[in-house]
Amino acid sequence: MKNKFYDYICQLQNTITQAFEAIDGKCQFKEDLWERKEGGGGRTRVIENGGVFEKGGVNVSAVHGPLAPAMQAYFKVGDVDFFACGLSLVMHPKSPMVPTVHANWRYFEMYDKAGTLVDSWFGGGLDLTPYYLFESDVTHFHEVCKTACDSHGPGLYQNYKKQCDDYFYNHHRNEARGVGGLFFDYLKITPEKNMKDWFNFVTEVADNFLTAYMPIVEQRKDLPYTENQRQWQEIRRGRYVEFNLVHDKGTLFGLKTNGRIESILMSLPPHVQWQYDHQPESDSAEAELLKVLKSPKNWCKQIY
Amino acid sequence: MKNKFYDYICQLQNTITQAFEAIDGKCQFKEDLWERKEGGGGRTRVIENGGVFEKGGVNVSAVHGPLAPAMQAYFKVGDVDFFACGLSLVMHPKSPMVPTVHANWRYFEMYDKAGTLVDSWFGGGLDLTPYYLFESDVTHFHEVCKTACDSHGPGLYQNYKKQCDDYFYNHHRNEARGVGGLFFDYLKITPEKNMKDWFNFVTEVADNFLTAYMPIVEQRKDLPYTENQRQWQEIRRGRYVEFNLVHDKGTLFGLKTNGRIESILMSLPPHVQWQYDHQPESDSAEAELLKVLKSPKNWCKQIY
Repeated sequence: MKNKFYDYICQLQNTITQAFEAIDGKCQFKEDLWERKEGGGGRTRVIENGGVFEKGGVNVSAVHGPLAPAMQAYFKVGDVDFFACGLSLVMHPKSPMVPTVHANWRYFEMYDKAGTLVDSWFGGGLDLTPYYLFESDVTHFHEVCKTACDSHGPGLYQNYKKQCDDYFYNHHRNEARGVGGLFFDYLKITPEKNMKDWFNFVTEVADNFLTAYMPIVEQRKDLPYTENQRQWQEIRRGRYVEFNLVHDKGTLFGLKTNGRIESILMSLPPHVQWQYDHQPESDSAEAELLKVLKSPKNWCKQIY
Repeated sequence: MKNKFYDYICQLQNTITQAFEAIDGKCQFKEDLWERKEGGGGRTRVIENGGVFEKGGVNVSAVHGPLAPAMQAYFKVGDVDFFACGLSLVMHPKSPMVPTVHANWRYFEMYDKAGTLVDSWFGGGLDLTPYYLFESDVTHFHEVCKTACDSHGPGLYQNYKKQCDDYFYNHHRNEARGVGGLFFDYLKITPEKNMKDWFNFVTEVADNFLTAYMPIVEQRKDLPYTENQRQWQEIRRGRYVEFNLVHDKGTLFGLKTNGRIESILMSLPPHVQWQYDHQPESDSAEAELLKVLKSPKNWCKQIY
């Protein structure tokens, strides 16, 4: 399974970066290969100052070795070995009319010191962070998520949509980071599903990433925008930074377990502002976005 | 003691904000009074888009009530009441030639449920974060810190200078946030010092804040600078954000114990950049700064 999933994400990295380069039209991804001293490594691809994307990265990595003490405590396990691989991406468009997107799909194995597999699971998801709200874009994104989930069982979309709303939440601001999508973790063998079933589920979600996001980029990338709208985008990007540095488990574990800093913090936006106590005018488009972030809503026409 | 120290910091807030307004020449601080539901409140003063200061804040607060569970765990105490007051300031100058400065002086009391004082201490310090290194500025700042410490006992400067270097450290980057200053905490009754002695020490340090920082602002504020130097400042400000959101205990406790978000995050710089894997040219002024941040050095001519 680990080779199968790793091959899959490497192929997916090619597909996704090619699609982003094609729509960007100006810049190409720059590739960095890196190795991890304790075992494994990765292939980081970053695009900067593009025609559409101001900054973005699409990384794959496969790392292994003894599980770090901080992670042992987190997973409540003893001194085990692990293997983890995944694809992780964040794209920050230049235009405030195009939402930022984040996605991640990963597979984890744990072994006892004799090398026997003792646990394994999939995790991941995708989510959207708009600066201006085009309801039809958000509905499209969620409909694609739902369709990808539905053939794998009833209630999956609803469950993972809620987990996404719960996870990407800036508790200190009482607002969501964005308008959500899917978030799932610890997808393990159950009476209903084996690991092959979860592989099929995760890869179906990942295969639909471009279907969910690209039509939105296509439709919004050439819209005009003002300096004030750009400023609002930079202020909202500050909230993105706050989430990633204060709340995001993946980022914090990476920073605390000697991960590759530049690949982890590649998720941070290029230009960001913090103003004191910034409040949008009431009834403005900016206030409209905040209202939706205060109480995450259902975007699909039919949930059950 | 609590009234005496609170009166002191309120007066100091006036002195400091007046001095900053005088040197800024363009903008004045905007004041926000706020109350804390559980008890107490504060007076936040913020300056934005000034002639010298792009963003900065000088806050006083005095809060009290039951100690939050997260803080009980941190202090390893049971269900007690507390009183805390302090002055906290961060100034982000517009010019990359002028360093950012941070300072904080605070007093803490704890009571059992009968209202009896069971513990009390002072904490605080001041530290400098330059974007370009003028060694004479850093030496001046540290000499003023040392002089303020020296009349209160041998070894204080050396001890609190080291604690400052240790505390304001971005472990995930293996570099200091800035060039340090003083950091002290849990200044409690000892055989050598009573709380009145610590009051005298802390207020002498605080009284010397303007002596330490203002001559640097005066000397560097009108230096010319380039777009590239400004960009370097914004990238370094990213490290400031990383420290405050990932490592700073004050910020994180504030965010997790329902503090006033805008007063806590007032410390974040106005315009910030993150570039992927940014490296200054070797032997440049930017590389020179990084060298000093990698291994904090002694700035005073005579330590012992």
